[in-house]
Amino acid sequence: MNVQPLTGIRVIDLTRVLSGPFSTMLLADMGADVVKVETPQGDTVRGQGEVVAGLSWYFASFNRNKRSLVLDLRKDEGKAVLAKLLERADVLVENFRPGVLAEMGFTEARLDAINPGLIVASVNGYGSAGPYADRPSFDFIAQAMSGFMATTGEKDGPPMRAGAPITDLVAGLYCAFGVVNAIRARELTGRGQRVEAAMVNGMVSMLAYLASEYLSTGRTPQRNGNDHPIASPYGLFQAKDGDIAIAPATPEILTRLMQELGLTDVLGRPDMKTAEQRRAGRAELNALINQRLSTDAQEHWIGRLNAAGVPCGKVLSVAEVFEDPQVKAQDMVIEVDQGPHGIVRMVGFPVKLSDTPARLRYPSPELGAHTDEVLAEAGLSQEEIAGLRARKSIGGSGR
Amino acid sequence: MNVQPLTGIRVIDLTRVLSGPFSTMLLADMGADVVKVETPQGDTVRGQGEVVAGLSWYFASFNRNKRSLVLDLRKDEGKAVLAKLLERADVLVENFRPGVLAEMGFTEARLDAINPGLIVASVNGYGSAGPYADRPSFDFIAQAMSGFMATTGEKDGPPMRAGAPITDLVAGLYCAFGVVNAIRARELTGRGQRVEAAMVNGMVSMLAYLASEYLSTGRTPQRNGNDHPIASPYGLFQAKDGDIAIAPATPEILTRLMQELGLTDVLGRPDMKTAEQRRAGRAELNALINQRLSTDAQEHWIGRLNAAGVPCGKVLSVAEVFEDPQVKAQDMVIEVDQGPHGIVRMVGFPVKLSDTPARLRYPSPELGAHTDEVLAEAGLSQEEIAGLRARKSIGGSGR
Repeated sequence: MNVQPLTGIRVIDLTRVLSGPFSTMLLADMGADVVKVETPQGDTVRGQGEVVAGLSWYFASFNRNKRSLVLDLRKDEGKAVLAKLLERADVLVENFRPGVLAEMGFTEARLDAINPGLIVASVNGYGSAGPYADRPSFDFIAQAMSGFMATTGEKDGPPMRAGAPITDLVAGLYCAFGVVNAIRARELTGRGQRVEAAMVNGMVSMLAYLASEYLSTGRTPQRNGNDHPIASPYGLFQAKDGDIAIAPATPEILTRLMQELGLTDVLGRPDMKTAEQRRAGRAELNALINQRLSTDAQEHWIGRLNAAGVPCGKVLSVAEVFEDPQVKAQDMVIEVDQGPHGIVRMVGFPVKLSDTPARLRYPSPELGAHTDEVLAEAGLSQEEIAGLRARKSIGGSGR
Repeated sequence: MNVQPLTGIRVIDLTRVLSGPFSTMLLADMGADVVKVETPQGDTVRGQGEVVAGLSWYFASFNRNKRSLVLDLRKDEGKAVLAKLLERADVLVENFRPGVLAEMGFTEARLDAINPGLIVASVNGYGSAGPYADRPSFDFIAQAMSGFMATTGEKDGPPMRAGAPITDLVAGLYCAFGVVNAIRARELTGRGQRVEAAMVNGMVSMLAYLASEYLSTGRTPQRNGNDHPIASPYGLFQAKDGDIAIAPATPEILTRLMQELGLTDVLGRPDMKTAEQRRAGRAELNALINQRLSTDAQEHWIGRLNAAGVPCGKVLSVAEVFEDPQVKAQDMVIEVDQGPHGIVRMVGFPVKLSDTPARLRYPSPELGAHTDEVLAEAGLSQEEIAGLRARKSIGGSGR
């Protein structure tokens, strides 16, 4: 049997760009039937990033396992088609600004009337209630407004954003988690409900001990570069041929590190006995460690220290990540046959299920490739579909 | 009815510290009955961070809605008790190094024999297959090994870790997503399965367009500090009384920004027409924008630009985040009555469900507070429980 966790779940996906499409891809990867509803121009990401043989690899890597339907939602009959689709859907996902869906005529009451079992999920910047609800959102701003940036960067340097659009993806993942929970809740209650994941809220939840440090003491955590605020030694060190990240976060691990480096005596020195002393002596400790590490290569030390139970590794570039034997062994790069566009390499499935795994069912869709197919499934006749197409309320290839 | 999405789901939680406890808290917040199985010494986080009136706020904020049972799993009869608990559990979650659970006697075959419906979930560093499977893991190292650090930081500076332990929390969130999917799959197949979320895999999935940039072009993305690799102007700017993060990521938004600043004429200049020209002229553009922004305060500009549809905000410190009116309106700080330890403030629930929301059912448990209660539910007699306690195979208050 080829069942997946979300087999049989029908998702109508109004999202664009990144946070929403990532969320619905997580659902699609788990087996949901995701219909990506696009404007006649299509998701803007279709034109972003490197376009190879007519296909954006960025688009391809966030829209696999989905079908595409082109619908003009500025037209009344476009909206009527959406309502028809929602009658038999389980989930609607959108990442408009709060209020936009209602302005389009799909208020909570209307959606409930169309389908009381419908789960309506939103990904947005700040949440739909509160003084900033109407503000436009963007990854960089959510990094700034969540405390994430203020706690990243050199001690004496500016707050630093992450290069990856982490706030979009965390919100998308929370949204997907919320949707699957709402599916389970519906089995218990018989009713749909609203699910909301905001980018700032998601990142606030990632602050972890930085949050509890402030909330318990009133002191606001400072940036520390790559140094640990408490542990020393800790951070980036230098082997003969490059950096090694080492995190001896407990006294036991520190002892093992110093043993491997032949520096056990240092921990016995009266001025290096306590964590506080080792923080004060960070520069000297780092110099001693670097001196030993400089006698051999990264690979040597990384193998040896890990074998001794000391967490350590290299700062891998994105290129090195995707050529790394572990990343490959974990199938974190998959090759997808995009037909006329050739083979596209993209990130694989980050959560592994042994029996009903995430898997590739089909590649990212051409714009509107499934318009007719989806509308026929929704009960529209060939004549109705032809009429909608003649009036440009739908689009796509008509395949 | 007070039903929640995971009402009726029984989770046996062997996790410690951060990634695993975060994952099981997400399940507990959604209504699962999570039994935190602790060593006689307890989760080490009980002693970490600020301890107020005998309670670590860091511990409290990652273990709400759980019950605690103390069990000595080094003893055979401790393992027998765990087997008994697993007979009637839905989910087992652990964050040991791969292989440790099997070394304890709980191989896949044994777990399947105990309970074929059991979902066995693991959070770990690199995944349980591949050359690095046995390596110890730690947030800093996962940031380094995933490409996340290499793409964060100043262009000419070192790779920079995020201050927040993002790799633990992303893996924990993926694990929770996987578990809820496996619960749904079990309804379709009748069987449990293994779920695995690795820290490095989770972060690789967050690279987004940085991944597709490398995979499509072979060029490895570089650090850009707070500048956008393509968009200009973009980044941190200076108002009269502090920085403003501005992200005019599309030509339309850029036009609105320049209108609000009275700089529309700049976009008409022959040397500022194209995105490439604006990247080359970044320093001049930034100076012009800063000159205008310096005429008024942060609050003025942030209100005005957001109203005009330009995503912008402040770089909030952790202190400012938790005092922010939006964060408060979203209930992202909750107050939990921890009895003798007083009221603890902690991060709220990041994903909102309208009908069956995440909510606080009970505070973080005292070590072993529910040992007797949980064992009685599992069918152990008072005599058996007393015997286990006398032999120090279980612990806790015996309430």
